[in-house]
Amino acid sequence: MIDDYIMTKPSIPKGTRDFGAIEMARRNYIFDTIKAVFAQYGFQQIQTPAMENISTLMGKYGEEGDKLLFRIQNSGEKANEAPEKGLRYDLTVPFARYVVQHREELQFPFRRFQIQPVWRADRPQKGRYREFYQCDVDVIGTDSLMSEVELIQIVEEVYRRLGLRVCLHLNNRKILAGIAEVIGAEDKLIDITTAIDKLDKIGTEAVNAELIERGLSAEAVEKMQPILSLSGSNEEKLAKIGQLLSASETGRKGVEETQTILQAAAALGVNLPVELDLTLARGLNYYTGAIFEVKALDVQIGSITGGGRYDNLTGIFGLPGVSGVGISFGADRIYDCLLEQNLYPESMLTGTQLLLTTFGQEELNWAMQVARELRQAGLRVEVYPEPCKMKRQMGYADAKQIPWVGIIGGDELAAKKVMLKNMASGEQELISIEDIIRSVNR
Amino acid sequence: MIDDYIMTKPSIPKGTRDFGAIEMARRNYIFDTIKAVFAQYGFQQIQTPAMENISTLMGKYGEEGDKLLFRIQNSGEKANEAPEKGLRYDLTVPFARYVVQHREELQFPFRRFQIQPVWRADRPQKGRYREFYQCDVDVIGTDSLMSEVELIQIVEEVYRRLGLRVCLHLNNRKILAGIAEVIGAEDKLIDITTAIDKLDKIGTEAVNAELIERGLSAEAVEKMQPILSLSGSNEEKLAKIGQLLSASETGRKGVEETQTILQAAAALGVNLPVELDLTLARGLNYYTGAIFEVKALDVQIGSITGGGRYDNLTGIFGLPGVSGVGISFGADRIYDCLLEQNLYPESMLTGTQLLLTTFGQEELNWAMQVARELRQAGLRVEVYPEPCKMKRQMGYADAKQIPWVGIIGGDELAAKKVMLKNMASGEQELISIEDIIRSVNR
Repeated sequence: MIDDYIMTKPSIPKGTRDFGAIEMARRNYIFDTIKAVFAQYGFQQIQTPAMENISTLMGKYGEEGDKLLFRIQNSGEKANEAPEKGLRYDLTVPFARYVVQHREELQFPFRRFQIQPVWRADRPQKGRYREFYQCDVDVIGTDSLMSEVELIQIVEEVYRRLGLRVCLHLNNRKILAGIAEVIGAEDKLIDITTAIDKLDKIGTEAVNAELIERGLSAEAVEKMQPILSLSGSNEEKLAKIGQLLSASETGRKGVEETQTILQAAAALGVNLPVELDLTLARGLNYYTGAIFEVKALDVQIGSITGGGRYDNLTGIFGLPGVSGVGISFGADRIYDCLLEQNLYPESMLTGTQLLLTTFGQEELNWAMQVARELRQAGLRVEVYPEPCKMKRQMGYADAKQIPWVGIIGGDELAAKKVMLKNMASGEQELISIEDIIRSVNR
Repeated sequence: MIDDYIMTKPSIPKGTRDFGAIEMARRNYIFDTIKAVFAQYGFQQIQTPAMENISTLMGKYGEEGDKLLFRIQNSGEKANEAPEKGLRYDLTVPFARYVVQHREELQFPFRRFQIQPVWRADRPQKGRYREFYQCDVDVIGTDSLMSEVELIQIVEEVYRRLGLRVCLHLNNRKILAGIAEVIGAEDKLIDITTAIDKLDKIGTEAVNAELIERGLSAEAVEKMQPILSLSGSNEEKLAKIGQLLSASETGRKGVEETQTILQAAAALGVNLPVELDLTLARGLNYYTGAIFEVKALDVQIGSITGGGRYDNLTGIFGLPGVSGVGISFGADRIYDCLLEQNLYPESMLTGTQLLLTTFGQEELNWAMQVARELRQAGLRVEVYPEPCKMKRQMGYADAKQIPWVGIIGGDELAAKKVMLKNMASGEQELISIEDIIRSVNR
């Protein structure tokens, strides 16, 4: 009931965004491309509610994560009690909840994708928003490594279609666990990977010092050295790691899994640089096997896609022993990469192709008829809704970058023809409706 | 960080829904159809954030509406203070906020559509949810009645494509205001329309009694009688109303607007039943001209699309005098109509066309290669990720209603062929990869 006149300077909450027409066209292009690839692999879309019970969300993202949950005030009498609902923080926990809640209806292995916004009460900064879209694809209910191989193919195909050059970084949590095991520091998995992660930036000596500082024995650090100095092809590195980890069953399993994935991808002719990367340590709290990360080769922006294998995602909701693997495409960063590399195709713009402009009410009435016929032929057509000054009508076409303008005055109306103007070349021609269709579609 | 094992029976907040694969396919079909029509008329998509400042939302939906806003608890130290943010309640107020906030960047008349969820803390009941999608299309920045005519064409085209028979009910707030004026009860506009609205159900005498009860004079009720007994075609009714309202400038304007809209639609050959309906009184708090409502002819479900002309939507945010007109498609009800009428086409299902099943690891490796080639040819293909019992693999195809299954055993592998089974007929045939493409595409 909009009848008050409250003067408010309108704005939106910090960390949130409006998406205008051009941003939406670009975002739809990215999502449509990704969805088309998912469909080719038999993944089906689901959606879950923005609000989840707070008990579904709490304790799933660590103490820090709990603080970043947006909580919904209860309505009515319970307004001052602890909130019972929160906004989803990611798509992974709602997916686990969905699988457990609907397990009787689902076919396993269950292949789903999900593209929806998530909300985090993070401090907003450049590239970090309080509302952003996630785009997740997962197979759950099988431990077959062919699922990892399929996800690699999906990464290959999505970025091939988008025209963006990327490299896929591959690791395996079992290899990291094996390293910790053979150097006698099983409880220091996170410390070890955090230190290894800095190798490129600070060099071997500083990493060694950090490992000591983090409580590793001199002997353990000594045993780490061959790991830190690995070189060669993926196969060569894996062979060396295999030797170093021969005493660890977990480590051997990790090497074997990675070999299987790499060999299968190679046999399929996957045309995507894949790099074995022991410094890749994302999601160690839940990933149990392969870990993936995709980086753009020509844009400095960090990871644009990532994921991994988890053996017990649904355990938190009472359904243990269901293994799955998934990846998430980072829409905001992909958006920026395509913009920087000028990779959005013209065809992505599905804006108006032709604007009809008129000199008077009778011409406007006929323009409505012309537009109807042109739309029936599949064109995207607007009629300027008032026969106002031609300058204003043309300015509208110009500002909206509409490529064709049809001008209808008294002569055109009498001849039942339209003066069609090509806005790029400035050329114009008096033609029939059928000829308009041919010209605009050309 | 999913490492705790909290046993929770998972569920979702009341009034919210999960959408599974089949629901999503149907919903996407509806939204894609509507979006394709919007694009043909040059409407561009925008999106606004789920959260708006509470000051943007409060006071816009009446006292009842304020109570139904979902409020977001502030984070950090302000947690116990009054919430500063709320979830959007509809798409209209965020649209008005968007237009005012971005007015320098926009071209007017601004033509936008928006398809996003909204949230209301309503008591959930059959067909009423706390989270549901709205699908709004508006032209703002012109008072040309050609915009009303375009919206009528959009209604015609959307339901033509969906195959649903509908009737469009048309009214005009100025006609209702004119009636109130000529019977000398200008302050009783809402009372009059509420009573008129019951005419079909309770009859003329009961309506007259109610009008008296609501404070109209006997004279005013007497003057109402010709209005209550209107009959004939839209043109005949309009002619009679025109006479009755000749003393009211507003009333005459309403009649004239309605005549213009109906005549223009008729001249264009709009193939949609349109009924002048004085009982249509939705949105009288903000609509200032035409009022629309669309009902399905073969399904009892109420209004499935509605809207109208508003002369001052952006006034609440400090930008007065901008006229617009818009309609909203009710996705949930359209969903139910199509389901009841069995109108979802087969082609809407973009699920897997072919599942490859295997008898062993070597066969599985080759199946991955076959799938890759079939996908490159455009097919939607799954590989069952484990060479487990054939019964389980076939059961999966059956349950997911995948129409074709390719069986690969040792003989097939040796011959580099696939035993292709048509799941509907049960027929199977040993064929090459190229022949699979032909068979599945046929």
